Amino acid sequence: MEFNLSAGAFAAEQKFMPLDGKTVYDVMILGGGPAGLTAAVYCMRKGVSTAMIVKRVGGQVAETSGIENYMGYRYINGMELAEKFREQVLQFGIAYEEGPGVRSVEQGAVKKIALDDGRTFSARTIIVATGKSWRKLDVPGEDEFLGKGVAYCATCDAPFFAGKDVIVAGGGNSGVEAAIDLAKIARKVILVQFLDNLTADRVLVDGLGRFGNVEILLGHEIKAITGDSAVRAVSAADRKTGVRREIAADGIFIEIGLVPNTSPFRGVVDLNDAGEILIDCACKTSAPGIFAAGDVTSVPFKQIIIAGGEGAKAALSACEYLLRDAAR
Amino acid sequence: MEFNLSAGAFAAEQKFMPLDGKTVYDVMILGGGPAGLTAAVYCMRKGVSTAMIVKRVGGQVAETSGIENYMGYRYINGMELAEKFREQVLQFGIAYEEGPGVRSVEQGAVKKIALDDGRTFSARTIIVATGKSWRKLDVPGEDEFLGKGVAYCATCDAPFFAGKDVIVAGGGNSGVEAAIDLAKIARKVILVQFLDNLTADRVLVDGLGRFGNVEILLGHEIKAITGDSAVRAVSAADRKTGVRREIAADGIFIEIGLVPNTSPFRGVVDLNDAGEILIDCACKTSAPGIFAAGDVTSVPFKQIIIAGGEGAKAALSACEYLLRDAAR
Repeated sequence: MEFNLSAGAFAAEQKFMPLDGKTVYDVMILGGGPAGLTAAVYCMRKGVSTAMIVKRVGGQVAETSGIENYMGYRYINGMELAEKFREQVLQFGIAYEEGPGVRSVEQGAVKKIALDDGRTFSARTIIVATGKSWRKLDVPGEDEFLGKGVAYCATCDAPFFAGKDVIVAGGGNSGVEAAIDLAKIARKVILVQFLDNLTADRVLVDGLGRFGNVEILLGHEIKAITGDSAVRAVSAADRKTGVRREIAADGIFIEIGLVPNTSPFRGVVDLNDAGEILIDCACKTSAPGIFAAGDVTSVPFKQIIIAGGEGAKAALSACEYLLRDAAR
Repeated sequence: MEFNLSAGAFAAEQKFMPLDGKTVYDVMILGGGPAGLTAAVYCMRKGVSTAMIVKRVGGQVAETSGIENYMGYRYINGMELAEKFREQVLQFGIAYEEGPGVRSVEQGAVKKIALDDGRTFSARTIIVATGKSWRKLDVPGEDEFLGKGVAYCATCDAPFFAGKDVIVAGGGNSGVEAAIDLAKIARKVILVQFLDNLTADRVLVDGLGRFGNVEILLGHEIKAITGDSAVRAVSAADRKTGVRREIAADGIFIEIGLVPNTSPFRGVVDLNDAGEILIDCACKTSAPGIFAAGDVTSVPFKQIIIAGGEGAKAALSACEYLLRDAAR
């Protein structure tokens, strides 16, 4: 059942409040993607004192241009949806900070959250919703040419490659999506896929097939990125024959997946082999009072509506814990 | 990662298609609430052949007036949100029927779905998203006066009680929400709660406290509903002393929870003690190829965004099963 208060019960605009080091918050939410923002709305509506530390509002949603599978919107821009989520949180007087990174977390009846900037905060429960980051190729030149032709976010950086030749590494959904984005504006797109087939959804592969300026190189592994002041070429090896070829290009988008942002939580909560936080169907982790939601967790399928639903579950689980289990 | 096709890739309006008894569908979705509709969008975007049998579009969302906790909308009417979900499905040429009930389901590599109207359909996978129905008091007069003063959906039926005296049975979120809705238009609202306290969220209890025309009767059990051509009184007993009182009223809203709609699936999938379909975090049931999502499942917390997320997971799990496990 949904809440049913008259419209505008919370309509008065409020401002975010700074975090207070002396307060023991009921809930500390770490992360500001769909999972964290949804958790915030649910916690605030439950009337528990809530603080939130966000690295980047909207998380990876803000990097997505067109979204057609978030229910309620047949089409919406990622930044626009992220801003709608943020506004929905903003209506509450939540303690909120944008920017700082989390260094470590200490378990206990009252949990301690230490930030990179040296400050420490306390909370009875934590909701970890720190999401995932881009996976790297780990090849020579990748770090050297970052921002000089090496990119990870096609939505963010594709416009820089208008009329140029660009490589996309990866043949999953991310890679094919990036290739489609780039094919619209680049001179030529070369998609280099490690496996012998594209693993993206059919609707995406079909979409890519409509472009005449896309080459697909299957079964090749990228070995190095080279250039001078910027990327000039990429070296790729045939995985069967070992034959290497130099592909001239002005840039490379690395779209080979994501790694969970879990380093502050290692040793505090159990992770799976992929480094994701193990949770049950109610978003409970192995540590009492610590919950997790969204892309950072072991729940499969990384989608906005899934992360949102998981954020709501984590918030409601945290509120139940506060009522029933927490030593107060 | 989200899909990233250009806007309008699916913009051409399509019509729902009738179900075909000779086709073996890849996915059969049962239920048209947030879980079922989200599953439909995900299945159609994956390019698998999908059929959908819906009893009522939007499920219980369509009965909710004001929704403030579906992310992306600070406030939206339930019917309006349900229609947005439906439109998002309508853009695909999905096989879709509204109205028929499901009688039974037969497990196998190809599953058989028998409807109340005698027709039978086939599918390689099933997504059960049949939701929940109102729980009944099971007292004399409840069936007799249904629609003559006995009601379950305040959003639907509250307007009929303008200026009248009305009882609400139940002190959880549903009961307090209904009491708030009714307090705005009824002459008097008497909330009768079985337990010794209200279990609704504080924001709701606070909201109810703002009305001067609400009485709360704690620790009472409703024993009978009486009247002539319509409800005239409700009999309630003090649970400690056993003392019964007659409360004059023009109607009663029964808001004591929900029961899962699982009767066609008994013996096919494992249920928990509450009769909900047991699923794992990827929406798998105990029966291979049968998935479940939303209020009908063992996942806690019944919320639109949670059901939506679960529907997406069920769809993606079903598509994975079709690729990897199904005998085709």
